[in-house]
Amino acid sequence: MAILGATGTVGQRFIQLLENHPWFEVAEVVASDQSAGKSYAEAVGSRWKLPTALPQAAGRLKVKRAGAPLRSKILFSSLDAAVAGEVEAHYAAAGHLVSSNARNHRMEADVPLVIPEVNRDHLEMLDRQKYRGGGIVTNPNCSTIVLAMALAPLHRAFGVEQVLVTTFQAASGAGYPGVPSLDILGNVVPYISGEEAKMESETHKILGRVTKKGIEPADFALSANCHRVPVLDGHLVAVSVKMSRKPRRRSIADAIRTFRPLAKLALPSAPDQPVLLRDEDDRPQPRLDVDRAGGMGVTMGRLRPCDVLDWKFDALAHNVIRGAAGAAILNAEILAVEGRL
Amino acid sequence: MAILGATGTVGQRFIQLLENHPWFEVAEVVASDQSAGKSYAEAVGSRWKLPTALPQAAGRLKVKRAGAPLRSKILFSSLDAAVAGEVEAHYAAAGHLVSSNARNHRMEADVPLVIPEVNRDHLEMLDRQKYRGGGIVTNPNCSTIVLAMALAPLHRAFGVEQVLVTTFQAASGAGYPGVPSLDILGNVVPYISGEEAKMESETHKILGRVTKKGIEPADFALSANCHRVPVLDGHLVAVSVKMSRKPRRRSIADAIRTFRPLAKLALPSAPDQPVLLRDEDDRPQPRLDVDRAGGMGVTMGRLRPCDVLDWKFDALAHNVIRGAAGAAILNAEILAVEGRL
Amino acid sequence: MAILGATGTVGQRFIQLLENHPWFEVAEVVASDQSAGKSYAEAVGSRWKLPTALPQAAGRLKVKRAGAPLRSKILFSSLDAAVAGEVEAHYAAAGHLVSSNARNHRMEADVPLVIPEVNRDHLEMLDRQKYRGGGIVTNPNCSTIVLAMALAPLHRAFGVEQVLVTTFQAASGAGYPGVPSLDILGNVVPYISGEEAKMESETHKILGRVTKKGIEPADFALSANCHRVPVLDGHLVAVSVKMSRKPRRRSIADAIRTFRPLAKLALPSAPDQPVLLRDEDDRPQPRLDVDRAGGMGVTMGRLRPCDVLDWKFDALAHNVIRGAAGAAILNAEILAVEGRL
Amino acid sequence: MAILGATGTVGQRFIQLLENHPWFEVAEVVASDQSAGKSYAEAVGSRWKLPTALPQAAGRLKVKRAGAPLRSKILFSSLDAAVAGEVEAHYAAAGHLVSSNARNHRMEADVPLVIPEVNRDHLEMLDRQKYRGGGIVTNPNCSTIVLAMALAPLHRAFGVEQVLVTTFQAASGAGYPGVPSLDILGNVVPYISGEEAKMESETHKILGRVTKKGIEPADFALSANCHRVPVLDGHLVAVSVKMSRKPRRRSIADAIRTFRPLAKLALPSAPDQPVLLRDEDDRPQPRLDVDRAGGMGVTMGRLRPCDVLDWKFDALAHNVIRGAAGAAILNAEILAVEGRL
Repeated sequence: MAILGATGTVGQRFIQLLENHPWFEVAEVVASDQSAGKSYAEAVGSRWKLPTALPQAAGRLKVKRAGAPLRSKILFSSLDAAVAGEVEAHYAAAGHLVSSNARNHRMEADVPLVIPEVNRDHLEMLDRQKYRGGGIVTNPNCSTIVLAMALAPLHRAFGVEQVLVTTFQAASGAGYPGVPSLDILGNVVPYISGEEAKMESETHKILGRVTKKGIEPADFALSANCHRVPVLDGHLVAVSVKMSRKPRRRSIADAIRTFRPLAKLALPSAPDQPVLLRDEDDRPQPRLDVDRAGGMGVTMGRLRPCDVLDWKFDALAHNVIRGAAGAAILNAEILAVEGRL
Repeated sequence: MAILGATGTVGQRFIQLLENHPWFEVAEVVASDQSAGKSYAEAVGSRWKLPTALPQAAGRLKVKRAGAPLRSKILFSSLDAAVAGEVEAHYAAAGHLVSSNARNHRMEADVPLVIPEVNRDHLEMLDRQKYRGGGIVTNPNCSTIVLAMALAPLHRAFGVEQVLVTTFQAASGAGYPGVPSLDILGNVVPYISGEEAKMESETHKILGRVTKKGIEPADFALSANCHRVPVLDGHLVAVSVKMSRKPRRRSIADAIRTFRPLAKLALPSAPDQPVLLRDEDDRPQPRLDVDRAGGMGVTMGRLRPCDVLDWKFDALAHNVIRGAAGAAILNAEILAVEGRL
Repeated sequence: MAILGATGTVGQRFIQLLENHPWFEVAEVVASDQSAGKSYAEAVGSRWKLPTALPQAAGRLKVKRAGAPLRSKILFSSLDAAVAGEVEAHYAAAGHLVSSNARNHRMEADVPLVIPEVNRDHLEMLDRQKYRGGGIVTNPNCSTIVLAMALAPLHRAFGVEQVLVTTFQAASGAGYPGVPSLDILGNVVPYISGEEAKMESETHKILGRVTKKGIEPADFALSANCHRVPVLDGHLVAVSVKMSRKPRRRSIADAIRTFRPLAKLALPSAPDQPVLLRDEDDRPQPRLDVDRAGGMGVTMGRLRPCDVLDWKFDALAHNVIRGAAGAAILNAEILAVEGRL
Repeated sequence: MAILGATGTVGQRFIQLLENHPWFEVAEVVASDQSAGKSYAEAVGSRWKLPTALPQAAGRLKVKRAGAPLRSKILFSSLDAAVAGEVEAHYAAAGHLVSSNARNHRMEADVPLVIPEVNRDHLEMLDRQKYRGGGIVTNPNCSTIVLAMALAPLHRAFGVEQVLVTTFQAASGAGYPGVPSLDILGNVVPYISGEEAKMESETHKILGRVTKKGIEPADFALSANCHRVPVLDGHLVAVSVKMSRKPRRRSIADAIRTFRPLAKLALPSAPDQPVLLRDEDDRPQPRLDVDRAGGMGVTMGRLRPCDVLDWKFDALAHNVIRGAAGAAILNAEILAVEGRL
């Protein structure tokens, strides 16, 4: 495996999450021109912001320049959007399979935007890509993933018609240095550039279906309202939803509990219970629930009737693991199971 | 004036806000049995949590026991809900006019629940109360006020039909000691006991109308979703609203800008512009906007179309000033202007 | 094993840390009268504030009343200081060995106050206790442990003469509900009741030596300056120290690196490197270093000359693990190794 | 007056503090090349991070390029250190009197580093500067000011011999964007680049005395230990001090209370009580004390014996007002009173 954009917030998570991965091993790291030529440990330096130590093997890897030839078939990309579009296309054209967390290719017609539990079938779009022997698969934006995973069992079982979502997003979602402390200490910022449009279009694509012409997006109404809060990790979303069929609470709980589409595949990064519905009044909370299932679990709670739409609830996931690095790794795992590596 | 419940978070704000009030002077303070007999300065001690010094005149007042005879006509109450119901009724029956921030009497049929800019006409319910010579007027819960003030100009001009609101509420809303730091440092708690029901019922009452039979609540659908965030002061709400008439952005902005129903009354605590709509992408923010107009102003922003209802926006106000102590003081000011003192 | 005071912040950590302990198993839980008779899961309810799930086996245990007969030889105590003195003495007199985190017995002449890496020899005081067949061993206050462990290798090698310590203490050190959020959000509180005296007297006792007459405390000058900061877990201390011998930096680093007195004992909770000296400019930091060695490691950094005393440095440890529950467990492990169980 | 570096964190404070200043008016603003030519309101845009509105008069000023000719005699400088050295010297040579918050010239032999309450007599160094008709006067670093003001009455009365100081510094001290939120949310960073050396050398210079050869620095031992904490505004310092004479608590309190060297000058920005010693156990606190005297007051507390040096205490001041913009303004006020404008 190679990591593109290895020194950033998400790149570091790739390094951390892959340290003891049973299938994948980090063999190459790619970063900016300033880092190229240095060891990864040297390049990342004091920007390593994880509470676990930098893995020694990764630390010794020599950083390559973006565009340099790579041996690895699978590339995990957390490149900055300023360069991701071109660099990822370059590597895909050169025969690599790029599992990308960058936003650049997500909405392209022939690029699958995948959450394995939700729309694994979209991977067939890879066969329609222009890249010979290579390809690009993307995972959604960190806030989209929480919403899409919470909606997936409801949409499948009851037909989602309208969704209103308000987010409480963690600082790590903006990377490093990212959000200045003067903006967020004891404060809420009711704006994240481009986030609402991404949540809306990406969720529609993910919950859409594959047709001969491409992916037909889901057509329910969706309105997103994004906020940054002084939380380190964990995007919380408050959701109200209207559904075609009018399920009772018990049916909804059943739909969530039985939503385990990857259960038999034994993927290393897939949680046993991808979406867990809690019954307590005051959950999910970032501090208590963000690390469920190694940061790959979505936790729901506060499911109750909504006087405007039908039901309302909260959902939470780790924005850098389930919402970014872990998402791209899980995508690679499902590609492996499908024999696409 | 007398302050009932003078040592708590809201009680301290009464003392602070009234220090230099041109019309009212704090002459008596009432608190719990432990405090009774002490000077106010002694009773409040290190629980004084405001960045301004305890006013010296108030500090010298001798604290009275709840139920003790009082000379003041106007009583401001921030009593704990455990005792407010009975104590306030006692004083009203004794001929005092109680301007209360406690929740106990808010939803009673003959008790006006008033925001002067919004439903000043509800004060006539005072004439129907059983208390001879006295009465009880209440202000809403701290999160209700932000919502009701933001909705008022829209409801008046365009007829509100559906409202979905998600709150970001400050720690001071729970008083002192209130929210334990282990619950809120770097965290969001998606639950505040009783808050959602209060926001819904109180907003309906405030935006309702006086009839012969009493106050007929507004009948639009309203769904509240309450969260505590690590902010000291300032409740932020994210709102989506559907209206009967389908106004353009400009009409909404005009309705808000011209919503100045108290403009000619020169009330000391009434802001010149009660609701201010800002055009920036990233406002309102608690840190930057909470103290507008001495903490009495509501600041709106991010007005934009909603793909589910019609429009969405954020609104913010200081929960302890506009949302509690300042609200009760403004109610007394309007009572004064109406000759009801 | 039994846990006394099992529902509090430290009690929960006992339950968490012992879930998979290779030697010890939680068989009994003791808590307040309100909890007695309930299952532990029911008794602790929503006060379970750890990000890991409540262990199921512990959750099923029926909570006993303080003073009730217990089968377990070893009792871990995190009782509130209001009751710990009497209850612990009761159980010790009944033949139990109490490993206590409570402050009550710490400074008693015949009670060892032990950090196994530092003063394991003080355990012989157990033989002088009045309790037949039972006994009480204590661990220090959470801030003392960080300081004492950082000083131990220096004192042993170079003779500590003067110590000035300023602390940055986490909110969890005060338990739950503990520090009100209004006191600590975006704030520093320069005072923790009783903390400075405890740091001073406990450190002297721990670094003292066993004599026929009892423990003779170390006699260097020590001045503590305690502060609460808005951090969840992890007490950081900034220390200046004067030593009899005047070591160079390299000698100090060697003394710390080779300070591994338990290395050969293979205790489950003892870190391989109990005190780790880092070379970076900006470490230790609570967020990055608090969980080193499962929260049992002390991390030092910023070792540099001091213009007033000789050297200055920072040190950090997890206040609830190394500083409380883990400390008591490690004490029980060393007792086991010494054949005192 | 002109403001050099008007768009940054300190520059904005100049604009805010001078809005209603009785003596000075902002007539010119200078900023970087990107801002030059725009109105100040346009140039600062959403980087205006103060809770008070941008003053309209200042907002309309056209931003000038650094080095452009200026009409104002007095220039307040909060230029970035990368350019301040040269630009300030340029303007001084051109006949302007520069009151600078930048660090560049502070330690130069002929540049006074002044806190008017402490070393007003150092202003005579202006007469020895090479700048004809112009000059440079500097104020200290934001953490130095807190320490130097707290030490000044003690040094004068009792002769300071040794000082150990540990700081708790606010995020605003690093400007904007400054400290990344990922570094400081729920964390402490035990390092601020260059800060400790500045505190030591600047304090010595300020408490030094003017001789024929220049300023002879004070020669007591001083050791600084700097930390960043998650606080917005307000640097807190914990200090231990040894003094030649051995005062009692009462004498110290008297020395602080009577330390009012500017009392008769009626300077607009000088607090009535520059250093206030509080008796409570738990003060000063940033949240409660930072705005004392409009942010110009230093608040001390926790004065108690130190077992290593003689006495220890905490002190606090607003780092952007007393520690930066307000400091430079006060320096200009004292220059005015001395007839140096």
